[in-house]
Amino acid sequence: MSAIRNRQILLAARPVGEIKSTDFKYQEVDAPEPGEGQALIRNLYLSLDPAMRGWMREGDSYIEPVRLGDVMRGGTIGEVVKSNSAEFKPGDKVFGMGNWQDYWIAGPKSGARALPADVPFPLTNFLSVLGITGLTAYFGILDVGLPKAGETVVVSTAAGAVGSIVCQIAKNKGCRVVGIAGSDDKCAWLINDLGIDAAINYKTQSVAAELRKACPNKIDIYFDNVGGEILNTVLGMINVHARVVICGAITQYNATQAVPGPSNYISLLTKRSRMEGFVVIDYMHRAMEGVMQLGQWLAEGKLKHREDIVEGLENAPNAILRLFDGSNKGKLIVKIA
Amino acid sequence: MSAIRNRQILLAARPVGEIKSTDFKYQEVDAPEPGEGQALIRNLYLSLDPAMRGWMREGDSYIEPVRLGDVMRGGTIGEVVKSNSAEFKPGDKVFGMGNWQDYWIAGPKSGARALPADVPFPLTNFLSVLGITGLTAYFGILDVGLPKAGETVVVSTAAGAVGSIVCQIAKNKGCRVVGIAGSDDKCAWLINDLGIDAAINYKTQSVAAELRKACPNKIDIYFDNVGGEILNTVLGMINVHARVVICGAITQYNATQAVPGPSNYISLLTKRSRMEGFVVIDYMHRAMEGVMQLGQWLAEGKLKHREDIVEGLENAPNAILRLFDGSNKGKLIVKIA
Repeated sequence: MSAIRNRQILLAARPVGEIKSTDFKYQEVDAPEPGEGQALIRNLYLSLDPAMRGWMREGDSYIEPVRLGDVMRGGTIGEVVKSNSAEFKPGDKVFGMGNWQDYWIAGPKSGARALPADVPFPLTNFLSVLGITGLTAYFGILDVGLPKAGETVVVSTAAGAVGSIVCQIAKNKGCRVVGIAGSDDKCAWLINDLGIDAAINYKTQSVAAELRKACPNKIDIYFDNVGGEILNTVLGMINVHARVVICGAITQYNATQAVPGPSNYISLLTKRSRMEGFVVIDYMHRAMEGVMQLGQWLAEGKLKHREDIVEGLENAPNAILRLFDGSNKGKLIVKIA
Repeated sequence: MSAIRNRQILLAARPVGEIKSTDFKYQEVDAPEPGEGQALIRNLYLSLDPAMRGWMREGDSYIEPVRLGDVMRGGTIGEVVKSNSAEFKPGDKVFGMGNWQDYWIAGPKSGARALPADVPFPLTNFLSVLGITGLTAYFGILDVGLPKAGETVVVSTAAGAVGSIVCQIAKNKGCRVVGIAGSDDKCAWLINDLGIDAAINYKTQSVAAELRKACPNKIDIYFDNVGGEILNTVLGMINVHARVVICGAITQYNATQAVPGPSNYISLLTKRSRMEGFVVIDYMHRAMEGVMQLGQWLAEGKLKHREDIVEGLENAPNAILRLFDGSNKGKLIVKIA
């Protein structure tokens, strides 16, 4: 087996401001040999996510930062090539943190899981609508946002991989849904294809003025992925007992100096409201519940989604930049093999 | 009855920045006559509270602002002078929103409540530890903060009327309690008399450095009455699943320009934590529960408190200023009669 070459992309430097492709380094090594109870997995697809910007940064967070010189972290779908484990047999498709490389070792503590053999969905769906992305939307809007029929839900990065699923779950729950996105194309997709009630192009429109028009009953839930000025604007327009769900803060990830905090946080007091962050890893014990419900909606046509698939592991360092300039259309995935 | 004179203090101007005594106006009118189902109440004590700064300001809040020219709003304890109501009989002591004046009319919809005749506590306690102040502390720390034994609780304005009760409830629940206050005297009182674990004088000490020393296990609950820089500092030091309880924001009440928001709100994401505001009026249906428990702790010596009683309704406009310069020692109350 030592003839198998394993292409890897390492974290070479901690980004200052925006990620640069030179923050990564390519290398080839021999693929590892699986030990007792382990399996060798060949990665087929790699998920690229905004959260990766956080993993590249030093400092206290919900997960250890990737160390310099380590293979860059990432969720993958792979296939078992060789197994010394009762859990995995050759040919099984496996979801796990396989990282930015061709081959990795899955063992009892790796968190890897084999997918059922006969899933009626494309494999890539388990990195998008049925993967961490879909589960983030599912638990964030349902468990933290607690939507009730008739409430008004505002979603930032609404055309993004997570946001677009949040929008549709909220619609499925009978809410009025207003999305904020970065282009007229994305806004049109949100309204015409996903069926949300209104969409705002934050690059060309006044978010405050458009929200006032689109939310005549003010805002009960805000699902936020951006932070910054939009978060502050929305906080100024919440209803009593509103829930502000902090899923991300993409305006902060690349900041090289402190981003102003939301001075309208004081609405949390006057409106007796809640702002709460969550991380999907806290819900992994309920992953099956989420996948089942998302899969049912998907099968029923109640959950539309897009995948933006880039060919070739070597293109991952350039592809990830697209998450931050907004040029990806749907869940960004790298096809490795 | 028309010979009874009613002294009143009106809101004459909306404060710009700090309250000035000239924002109020004194007048004397005839006391009103109670109609059918109503009672005439003579105020004995008036509560002065930081929240009054908010009531004097125009704009959207949890309660309508006081209108210019109206009697200034305030909670009072009074005595029934004359009654056409089955609910109140002359001599009854009544808690209600009697405002800054000698006499007012309590009726079925006024929210006024007679106190039991034989309460074993001084009347003023129903404006302090057993009144809105105590209930604010009680529901804020217990229902929003959700303290568990062994957790670390930080309280700002810890020597204040609400904060000092929060500190003691948290101690009663088995928490490590760290208070932030504005003088060495207040800090000494918190440690020596109330028995909290550490106290920080924010005027002379580095809050960040002292919190690091006083909170070796970081911060699980922050009960905030100040906002501003201290809120931001604490947000940077919270544990996973922390609760930040927004009870007030005294640094913002007098601000004439936007106060910077807490840029460390992003810890809510990385620490999967919650920041939530509350207003005690939402808990008034559970007031009896709170008063009973607070009364029991008080009787058992598990709840110490101070009252700072100013003589004379005419001194209320100057007395309220002391809430904002920190010179009051304990719950500020005006003795009217």
